Amino acid sequence: MNSILTYEDACDIIKEHFKFINLKITEVNIPDSVGKLLAEDIISDIDMPSFDNSQMDGYAVMYNENIREWNITGEISAGNFKDIEVSGNQAVSIMTGARLPSGADTVIPVENVIAETGMIKLIEGIILKKGSDVRFKGEDIKKDAVAIPSGTLINTSNIPLIASCGYNKIKVFESLKIGFFATGDELVDINTIPVNDQIRASNLYSLTTLIKELKMTPVNMGIVKDDKSQIKDTVNKAIESEFDILITTGGVSVGKYDYLKDVIEGCGFETVFWKVKVKPGKPLLFSIYRKSDRNILYFGLPGNPVSAFTSFLLFIKPFISELYKYEPQKRFKAILEQELTKKDKRKTFVRGIALINNSTLNTPLCSVRKAEGGTQSSGDMSSLSNANCLIIFEENVSKLNSGEIVECIMI
Amino acid sequence: MNSILTYEDACDIIKEHFKFINLKITEVNIPDSVGKLLAEDIISDIDMPSFDNSQMDGYAVMYNENIREWNITGEISAGNFKDIEVSGNQAVSIMTGARLPSGADTVIPVENVIAETGMIKLIEGIILKKGSDVRFKGEDIKKDAVAIPSGTLINTSNIPLIASCGYNKIKVFESLKIGFFATGDELVDINTIPVNDQIRASNLYSLTTLIKELKMTPVNMGIVKDDKSQIKDTVNKAIESEFDILITTGGVSVGKYDYLKDVIEGCGFETVFWKVKVKPGKPLLFSIYRKSDRNILYFGLPGNPVSAFTSFLLFIKPFISELYKYEPQKRFKAILEQELTKKDKRKTFVRGIALINNSTLNTPLCSVRKAEGGTQSSGDMSSLSNANCLIIFEENVSKLNSGEIVECIMI
Repeated sequence: MNSILTYEDACDIIKEHFKFINLKITEVNIPDSVGKLLAEDIISDIDMPSFDNSQMDGYAVMYNENIREWNITGEISAGNFKDIEVSGNQAVSIMTGARLPSGADTVIPVENVIAETGMIKLIEGIILKKGSDVRFKGEDIKKDAVAIPSGTLINTSNIPLIASCGYNKIKVFESLKIGFFATGDELVDINTIPVNDQIRASNLYSLTTLIKELKMTPVNMGIVKDDKSQIKDTVNKAIESEFDILITTGGVSVGKYDYLKDVIEGCGFETVFWKVKVKPGKPLLFSIYRKSDRNILYFGLPGNPVSAFTSFLLFIKPFISELYKYEPQKRFKAILEQELTKKDKRKTFVRGIALINNSTLNTPLCSVRKAEGGTQSSGDMSSLSNANCLIIFEENVSKLNSGEIVECIMI
Repeated sequence: MNSILTYEDACDIIKEHFKFINLKITEVNIPDSVGKLLAEDIISDIDMPSFDNSQMDGYAVMYNENIREWNITGEISAGNFKDIEVSGNQAVSIMTGARLPSGADTVIPVENVIAETGMIKLIEGIILKKGSDVRFKGEDIKKDAVAIPSGTLINTSNIPLIASCGYNKIKVFESLKIGFFATGDELVDINTIPVNDQIRASNLYSLTTLIKELKMTPVNMGIVKDDKSQIKDTVNKAIESEFDILITTGGVSVGKYDYLKDVIEGCGFETVFWKVKVKPGKPLLFSIYRKSDRNILYFGLPGNPVSAFTSFLLFIKPFISELYKYEPQKRFKAILEQELTKKDKRKTFVRGIALINNSTLNTPLCSVRKAEGGTQSSGDMSSLSNANCLIIFEENVSKLNSGEIVECIMI
């Protein structure tokens, strides 16, 4: 496919290809399970609670509508069960969470009685109900019942239940292994002071953190010179490394020195598309390597730090998020504070600062403006660093007016 | 202070005491810096870009309004700078990102010319502007300028700039060291099958994951019997361990076996308050240990798994989030789908399920209902596991009607 795709069409195609990723299953300890996708049903090995117990500090009795005074015959606290039996006007002093004595079916909270030596009286006006303030065996969940179904994205609120069901390790879907390298003769490691026309390979760090933020596994393959055989060797190493996704930066624009597409195809990848009508990030090479057991999706991102960053945000992150049932990319509408113009027909993502009040989901429209610092050039990192969103500037629109309502994507 | 506080008053008091936490500074590698609070200004050690360069694949020329044809005298790509000089009608073929030759101040994009052997002609109608498609030295950020100020919560969008400024490690505020243990004779490790009146100590796992989710450092001190001297020894160990926060679960209600308050005070902690008018979680012991170099905040949470979980969410998480400038706890308004009643005057947090559409911040009011599973008893974990929010049921309100707008806190 050689035509230039729209952003939406490119996304549809990428989404379809994410189906070729085979998720593997792994086991993790409970403290490491939050944010993972459950790959088995969590089944309780016990009734919960596993015994009738008191919800309050008070007195356990056998309910009888005619009795309002009881003799205290014993005392039970959580973890110190005594096999006492109660009936008639007998009561056992009981602590919150403690197991009910035999015969008892009702708890009277301590604040509802007048206690005298060895006995208690129900306070005038208090109506006792059978079963009140008791948590009955199995009331929360029954033994062998599914407590949490497979496919659930594990949140902290699932943890008490998982920990109580008798699991030590749980099965979850493994994170994707995402390898990447940066191509370019101009690139030097960030620990080097660049001279002449060198620039620091910041993309390797952007990708590492973007991938880590999605709880995936980044594999940094470093800087590779604009040299066909070096690139080829690195791509072949990536194929052997069983990555789910391979990402490169640089070498995908129309310049004479940009021949990554040929090398990638030479290594056995099929080109799906290689241009999208967006800015930043028009040159985007998307390919797939098909193996019997595991496919590799390939994204050739532009080399400019801002283009590489936003391309990951726009073309890769949404589909990883969808695969792992993460919260979708946040989009919101905002009032544009200034006029924006463009000559280009491409769909443009302008680095913006929105005055978002995160404390509420029911935000009224906030205002948004271009992020300050440097310029909006694809290479300028200050404005990206200052931005908290991308303002969407649609394909065939050349001007957005001040006061107009625009759609934004949260960074 | 012995009176029962409102939730709001308790929060105000806790907030004040968080000021006594002394944040320490540590160094991290760039890939580990996202979500950390920057503890130094990030200053660029170079101009960015560090040389005038081309924004496009095209031709570098010295601008002259009268010239529309140039002879090609050389070629430069990124990382392969050649010290060519251009003037008059000379042009150098140049790739995106490549350094401009001496004399050149303007780039003509490849699509704006007709190329012939050894020369180019500007296409009819194209107007050339001086400086167009050039990124000038220092235009993004100047050498020695502050790129990112201290105190910034580092996001992935800051990473390209940080990596380009010449930092290998950066100074950030250290995460809080939060120790915790669970008290109760009834508790057994989660790997054990509970017998008689035993229950699994799920709270240790809830706290581990809740603390990890906030990027703080959890230190699990395990299960401690309801035994004064064992608890005292463990609290003393916690004091020696230089925790910023100590949390216990259990042993704080009015039951005769609940004497944690005395032990905590005996170890040198000052009780700030120990009861709050909320449900779940009324018994909440809040104390402070004052040392010359580092103070310890102490939270004695209830032992019930749901109470312990929501107490962390309501009384601890918001203040850690504030200290580290995290996004505040999400609150939103929703339409209640069913009638809710309560007898208690306490402010109640009902486990709820809201049909939130996370894909937009400008959500219209969503609907919310009680989370299903088990009961709303403080000990029942199924409904917590199914919940995605807490519905706020105010102090002196006894009934919420179906269709009423309620405020919710996202879990």
